[in-house]
Amino acid sequence: MDVPTPSPRERILLTAHDLFYRDGLRATGIDRIIAESGVAKLTFYRCFASKDALIRTFLDYRHDRWMAWFVDALGRHGATAGGGLAPLLPALGEWFSDPLFRGCAFINAMAEVGAALPGVAEIVQNHKQDMQHVIAGLLPAGMRQQALAGAAAVAVDGAIVRAQMEGGEAALAGLGLLLDALNVSEKT
Amino acid sequence: MDVPTPSPRERILLTAHDLFYRDGLRATGIDRIIAESGVAKLTFYRCFASKDALIRTFLDYRHDRWMAWFVDALGRHGATAGGGLAPLLPALGEWFSDPLFRGCAFINAMAEVGAALPGVAEIVQNHKQDMQHVIAGLLPAGMRQQALAGAAAVAVDGAIVRAQMEGGEAALAGLGLLLDALNVSEKT
Repeated sequence: MDVPTPSPRERILLTAHDLFYRDGLRATGIDRIIAESGVAKLTFYRCFASKDALIRTFLDYRHDRWMAWFVDALGRHGATAGGGLAPLLPALGEWFSDPLFRGCAFINAMAEVGAALPGVAEIVQNHKQDMQHVIAGLLPAGMRQQALAGAAAVAVDGAIVRAQMEGGEAALAGLGLLLDALNVSEKT
Repeated sequence: MDVPTPSPRERILLTAHDLFYRDGLRATGIDRIIAESGVAKLTFYRCFASKDALIRTFLDYRHDRWMAWFVDALGRHGATAGGGLAPLLPALGEWFSDPLFRGCAFINAMAEVGAALPGVAEIVQNHKQDMQHVIAGLLPAGMRQQALAGAAAVAVDGAIVRAQMEGGEAALAGLGLLLDALNVSEKT
């Protein structure tokens, strides 16, 4: 069994991911990331020109990782193309009950650094567009598909921040009611 | 006309409000707040024991100010007890189009300092409970009132973070669809 040893760059990125997501972008210093990833300072700066560059790379990595989880979780909960929004609820429920859940890394990044760090707003917008695109794929093709996906994405974002503030239960109850209502209103 | 001069404590709090909300809690240093509020360092520490104490006082002040605006804006857009959720849309639209809009100070505080700063999670939860209480007042009394208010509050939070990430237009379109759907599903 050959398990490839992660490169210094990968070790830095995985350490940064866990610390940035758990403690926030500004609260996590470069020195902490260097110490916990076990690389030399020089190695760090050969891999990443600055903390800002690392933050952007973290967000790109987080995007890939979260989207892969999202698509997989929806599939495990019965998602099919055009089959409806119902799998959103158990998929998000799984995430909200993860002890490491601390909300959406992109909503958090926007709240923390927002427009102050060039490039972040664009990464955040692309993430939300891709999330909405996956949600749209759950809906039947038609004139209303994109508008409904936009509404469902707003409901999902609301549930994510509610779960972060108050725990998953109230967030999932609210989201379930919103998704049911969208479903009923489409059929009337 | 006697316009009372704000006390040093009020000057610090108003300056902290504007900077914390615009630039974030961690990005705003005490020295900056002291300089911009024009008080002596000693005066600052006589009013607030620490930056953390100032952050908590800022959140309490922001809560009062935002709730007063929210109730007033809903009223200006035709809110009545039990009269329905429709006034939420123009009220939030007003806020989203304010050039100083930078999302919900409480969602942002949770994203930035979360559990790391004692007392913040509780202030954030109380804020969202009070927001939901006002939303519940727009709904007819009945068995479903609290559940519907919870769902509408999730939709409102989703719209707030969407507006922060992408501007108000898509956020309001999604929120409008969700509120209409809640309305339709209640009548079927």
